[in-house]
Amino acid sequence: MEKKRTEIASLGEFGLIDRLTQGFDHHHSSTLCGVGDDAAVVAPSEEEETVITTETLFEGVDFDLSYFPLKHLGYKVVTVAVSDLLAMNARPRQLLISLGLSAKIPVEALDDLYEGIRFACKEQKIDLVGGDTRASMTGMVISVTAIGGVKKGQAVYRSGAKKHDLICITSNLGAAYMGLQLLEREKRVLADVANPEPQFKGYEYLLEKYLKPRPRTDILDVLEEEKILPTAMIDLSDGLASDLKQLCRASKCGARIYLERIPIARQTSELGEEMHIDPVIATLNGGEDYELLFTVPIALQEQVMRLGVVDVIGHITDEAAGCYLVTPDGGEIKLKAQGFPEE
Amino acid sequence: MEKKRTEIASLGEFGLIDRLTQGFDHHHSSTLCGVGDDAAVVAPSEEEETVITTETLFEGVDFDLSYFPLKHLGYKVVTVAVSDLLAMNARPRQLLISLGLSAKIPVEALDDLYEGIRFACKEQKIDLVGGDTRASMTGMVISVTAIGGVKKGQAVYRSGAKKHDLICITSNLGAAYMGLQLLEREKRVLADVANPEPQFKGYEYLLEKYLKPRPRTDILDVLEEEKILPTAMIDLSDGLASDLKQLCRASKCGARIYLERIPIARQTSELGEEMHIDPVIATLNGGEDYELLFTVPIALQEQVMRLGVVDVIGHITDEAAGCYLVTPDGGEIKLKAQGFPEE
Repeated sequence: MEKKRTEIASLGEFGLIDRLTQGFDHHHSSTLCGVGDDAAVVAPSEEEETVITTETLFEGVDFDLSYFPLKHLGYKVVTVAVSDLLAMNARPRQLLISLGLSAKIPVEALDDLYEGIRFACKEQKIDLVGGDTRASMTGMVISVTAIGGVKKGQAVYRSGAKKHDLICITSNLGAAYMGLQLLEREKRVLADVANPEPQFKGYEYLLEKYLKPRPRTDILDVLEEEKILPTAMIDLSDGLASDLKQLCRASKCGARIYLERIPIARQTSELGEEMHIDPVIATLNGGEDYELLFTVPIALQEQVMRLGVVDVIGHITDEAAGCYLVTPDGGEIKLKAQGFPEE
Repeated sequence: MEKKRTEIASLGEFGLIDRLTQGFDHHHSSTLCGVGDDAAVVAPSEEEETVITTETLFEGVDFDLSYFPLKHLGYKVVTVAVSDLLAMNARPRQLLISLGLSAKIPVEALDDLYEGIRFACKEQKIDLVGGDTRASMTGMVISVTAIGGVKKGQAVYRSGAKKHDLICITSNLGAAYMGLQLLEREKRVLADVANPEPQFKGYEYLLEKYLKPRPRTDILDVLEEEKILPTAMIDLSDGLASDLKQLCRASKCGARIYLERIPIARQTSELGEEMHIDPVIATLNGGEDYELLFTVPIALQEQVMRLGVVDVIGHITDEAAGCYLVTPDGGEIKLKAQGFPEE
């Protein structure tokens, strides 16, 4: 069945924005003015600090529309921004989306994208307060700004980790990276097939971790309930090695993490074996897990381990000691940030 | 003399962000955490509401690097975002910049871009609190998020205009558009010349209006001093016709503006004559003036005209009466939004 295709130009700019932003409820009384004016207006609370982050995602670099369903992409861009707020110990409140669109994108594709954004906003009680679309010469560009709130004095920075603090992570890592490898493999394999039927059976978890990662708001709930305030926190978007190094750099400290303590999902190991990818590399350098890494004083060791939702993978050391991964046989591997070359 | 060319990859990501964001002072005690963490943290004031806007600019659509000096571009992106805050009657406080970069851009070009941003931030006392760079497959993409403050209850929306209100603008219009036409003409003319010497003499004002538009913070100062609170306001970025129509749409009203009351700069008229472009078209549809359009109750007519910094160009009518430009001979031209086709 042919999908309906409406050209963006046929709606007009007002019509397009109206269509995309319908069905977004406001959940916060602090949202005074949302989509449709020059800017959004928010009434800050006297008990809170405001936290703001912005991220821009590029087609061809951050996502491949040939296999990334637009609904999932909409959901994921919200996670990408919200995850930065959570890493400051802040709760998401408002969202602004700014799109760059090539002429080849029909309105129906944008409907799908916004359905994903709408779903994420409903699920996480976030108010969409700004939306803007304009032409892009090439691929799709999605820019997200998220605004959150945190109780005064409770923001958690990257810079607060102290020697002997425990390093905690909130899930197994590397699964999102393996999900991406799987999608890329199927794309290559099926490039010349008329009616492609990609083989994902048994790897659904990896696909979900890559295509629709959930922001770990639940971790903030647990920590708040247990009255645990991390000394430092960062979200795992670039890979464990790079993100831990960034936290250490901000905190002027070093770190030792232990390979056997880093959880790896069964599907990650299985696909790794099948594709000859070391799951440890996926874990250290894969990125896009959108889990949280935080540090707590060693005195909280028992309490943290009782939570059942985090793994303690190592501890903070002196800055001079550097950042190392310790293997089961006692070997030490210096952690390197990936992506950009080492400085 | 050959310009120094440093590859971005040679600095590393930390090194690049450090280099670009140096020399940005913080001017506001409300800025608790700036560049270098997952997100920015701002302490909102009890007397203020927070205003947020985000804009994304694309190379090849919003700017042409072959003639747009990067320092000016840096300045202009700040104006583009700040202008949206001013249009809500808010003062700029913080700024986040997110860049998409192709490999062809050397570090020195980014230094120039950030010099312009730094200059604008110093001039307007804005704190840079977030910065992010990542690869773009194609041209440069600049995403700006600006945060401002406005006294509680003093935000001015697009939706508040009432019948009989006066329509005011803050400068002559169309000059930025003519500046762009001039730059495009020189680019065409000099495309095959070895040592091009573009002819801009006599049109410096037009170039400045296009390349380095100043945000009209001074207008907010004047209005505040005179205790004038506009009933509605919008910034003139899309062109007078489109922006006035947007204000009317939000306010559920119509408008009549008078051609002979719309100021046009001498250079705009002169270049228009030279290039066979009707300056009225430039004024109505040119856009990028980043001036303000606002409405005030008719009772303030004398006071507004005494200010000396605004022109009253017409008045608000019933919604059913539509939006019209009245020519000196009494003719009526229906205003049409440009860019996107009419809905």
